[in-house]
Amino acid sequence: MNSMDIQVIGVLGLPLIQQGDDLPALICERVAFQDGDILAVASSVYSKSKGFTRDLATITPGADAVRIAEKTKEDPRFVQAVLDSSADILLEYPFILSELPSGHIGVRAGVDHSNVEDGRIIILPPDPMGAAAEIRDSIRRITGKNVRVLITDTCGRSFRRGQTGIAIGWAGMTAINDYRGDTDLFGHVLEITEEAVVDEIAAFANFVMGESHQGVPAVVFRNCRTWTGHDTVYFTPEQDIIRAALKSKKD
Amino acid sequence: MNSMDIQVIGVLGLPLIQQGDDLPALICERVAFQDGDILAVASSVYSKSKGFTRDLATITPGADAVRIAEKTKEDPRFVQAVLDSSADILLEYPFILSELPSGHIGVRAGVDHSNVEDGRIIILPPDPMGAAAEIRDSIRRITGKNVRVLITDTCGRSFRRGQTGIAIGWAGMTAINDYRGDTDLFGHVLEITEEAVVDEIAAFANFVMGESHQGVPAVVFRNCRTWTGHDTVYFTPEQDIIRAALKSKKD
Repeated sequence: MNSMDIQVIGVLGLPLIQQGDDLPALICERVAFQDGDILAVASSVYSKSKGFTRDLATITPGADAVRIAEKTKEDPRFVQAVLDSSADILLEYPFILSELPSGHIGVRAGVDHSNVEDGRIIILPPDPMGAAAEIRDSIRRITGKNVRVLITDTCGRSFRRGQTGIAIGWAGMTAINDYRGDTDLFGHVLEITEEAVVDEIAAFANFVMGESHQGVPAVVFRNCRTWTGHDTVYFTPEQDIIRAALKSKKD
Repeated sequence: MNSMDIQVIGVLGLPLIQQGDDLPALICERVAFQDGDILAVASSVYSKSKGFTRDLATITPGADAVRIAEKTKEDPRFVQAVLDSSADILLEYPFILSELPSGHIGVRAGVDHSNVEDGRIIILPPDPMGAAAEIRDSIRRITGKNVRVLITDTCGRSFRRGQTGIAIGWAGMTAINDYRGDTDLFGHVLEITEEAVVDEIAAFANFVMGESHQGVPAVVFRNCRTWTGHDTVYFTPEQDIIRAALKSKKD
């Protein structure tokens, strides 16, 4: 191994997470953390540990949910949960694409009915940045180690089929590595100045987690470089060309 | 280490790649490949080794390039090179977004003037799938090892600031891990059935490569799982909702 080597460690043997479980403690029992490690946690298991789930039987769909559900052929109660999680709807059909209060734009507002008991759905953590900070603080308290934490979700994207992992919350690092003012191999000032490093790490974490029944909801990255930058990962509506095009089509 | 551990190794010490360089041989001098390794190679260094670069002084911009360059404030010869690399233009301003003959949709058709001599630009490999297959075959010939190969590019995306790595070519694996028919932890058939694993790996490869002057254009992933799926990563125009919205706005 040389200094560029990174280790990526899937956290094995976690139980099925239930509301009230101390997720950071369960992870710390299985990982010997080192300072600087990056821990990626699937938003679904964080949500389950905190009770960010809903029982479909308790949801009464409104008129909008009934109308959209007729088009998308989904359970109107599920659609209502998506609307409840959304701050702005960008597209209703063939799938609901919406903006969450956090700024994240995703399909069905990240509401999920896989890997949960029948009749229940998992919603995204309402404060994903706070969730990452809380896990980071817990790990520091339990182990004394200074780690960085990512909360991941699985998302579709424009122009390409298939889902990939992205980061919806992070702590101990900035979302964006800002290269402004840096120079390339030939001494030119770089024009590409922003790399969304949290999403690049979340993407590979999602690959290691796998979908399906593999059940590896936490992944540790060891020996990753540090960077400087900022946390402005979401466009303003005025900056967002694709959003504007969708909105103008919808109206 | 347990069986879930993955090693990610940046290939250090490669020289500045020139046209005619045997890139697979240069990488094999620096990596002891094992069967199953995944090698990610930056498209820019592959293009340089093959001479997929252009001299701006030899390009005469046409009327469209001059018209677009006035809006984007770019060199009209650079814009002409972007148009020459594009099969279909989805957006002209504030940046050119276009589809390449390979099906990949990207900003400025991936034409790049960083990390290259003044007055030259790097274009994406015209046949990125063939490029990955060629590198894979060369490594097998040199080392006898059966590796998987990705060609990466750096790309913006919708709804989120910052660029991330994506895969434009791959060999020895499918782009998409298809989970159709698989079940989740509770035995339900999964609804999310397609994971774009090549893009998840390319994203983290890009993080390890870094932008700027770090000069690590190749990354090896060791001990990654295998998967089954398919290579249909690009939507048809009829399937692509965002493309349709952009097109309807443009017309």
